[in-house]
Amino acid sequence: MKILFSPTSPYVRKCLVAAHELGLADRIQLLPSNAHPVQRDPEIIRNNPLGKVPTFFTDDGQVLYDSRVICEYLDNLAGGTLFPAPGARRWETLTLQSLGDGILDAGLIARYEDVARPQPLRWPEWRAGQLDKAETSLAHLNARPALLEGRVDIGAIAVACALWYLDLRFEDLRWRERHPAVAKWFASFGERPSMRAAWAI
Amino acid sequence: MKILFSPTSPYVRKCLVAAHELGLADRIQLLPSNAHPVQRDPEIIRNNPLGKVPTFFTDDGQVLYDSRVICEYLDNLAGGTLFPAPGARRWETLTLQSLGDGILDAGLIARYEDVARPQPLRWPEWRAGQLDKAETSLAHLNARPALLEGRVDIGAIAVACALWYLDLRFEDLRWRERHPAVAKWFASFGERPSMRAAWAI
Repeated sequence: MKILFSPTSPYVRKCLVAAHELGLADRIQLLPSNAHPVQRDPEIIRNNPLGKVPTFFTDDGQVLYDSRVICEYLDNLAGGTLFPAPGARRWETLTLQSLGDGILDAGLIARYEDVARPQPLRWPEWRAGQLDKAETSLAHLNARPALLEGRVDIGAIAVACALWYLDLRFEDLRWRERHPAVAKWFASFGERPSMRAAWAI
Repeated sequence: MKILFSPTSPYVRKCLVAAHELGLADRIQLLPSNAHPVQRDPEIIRNNPLGKVPTFFTDDGQVLYDSRVICEYLDNLAGGTLFPAPGARRWETLTLQSLGDGILDAGLIARYEDVARPQPLRWPEWRAGQLDKAETSLAHLNARPALLEGRVDIGAIAVACALWYLDLRFEDLRWRERHPAVAKWFASFGERPSMRAAWAI
């Protein structure tokens, strides 16, 4: 199996953490790429017309994207439990994944505002609105510590990758000061071998 | 069941088309809302901290988001076939959904550039890069007419909602001229009762 990746893509990280949890990481070859929303990479587009990473190649020739599809494929391949069977637990887990991915989407949009867009064209209220999505989402999680506690599934992985990305790009947010229950959970979840292995790329 | 909606949200449309296909539309109450990325709606945030629509309420009290989770929930509730069982067909269908959703994400970002951002802060290359994602995606589909033909699942619905949104917001793209196979497919799929019913809101 192969994956088009970039080392700072949080969605690639999410796939690699899932692969580690499932014992599949050694079977996935990493193919470097140059995803960018303005200078689009024709090498990626040839396989994924959206031009985004992660883009994944199965051993029997399917091309899969985005991270949600790749992670569910890997879970199914390994007979894992990152995606619960249909029922209330599945919908809760998938909604938690949407929350983590939503924080990431907002963070990426704010990041593009900070570094891709020419300085005179930046709009502070837009950036603030995006980062406020992260803020209200962390407040939501902080008020519900039972939602994350003890959980090892695609919901927890998505939230953990979102927190990793906030630390990477928005250290100034100092989110731990306002959301101590989330900070406590992440201090523990972040020590999982899957998380440490994927972080080391 | 209830759904927080706005009439021009393509992701809400996607959920409503799925609900119609599954015979569930009459059981879903539409709750108006005011989603906006800068002036964020506290009424939505109370239920979905990302502040986005669609946000969905099941009859047994779960709050679900985003559209992928809501559509899969509805499919499972109705015993439908919009989401195939695990296997190659499922991964193909989910990747097609990612493609449709990716076109929509790009279209929404271009739309915010056009109408939400103050005029002096707009960046034409950014908008062009987003709309090029739609262009390369439609070229990909146009070269593979068998991928869409005869398909009634969440992949087809996602692509159809993306095309609907391009027509709504970017008529000037005139995508049909360059992608006639996609245009032919959409002329037919768009006549399905599910599509016409959801369109009529």
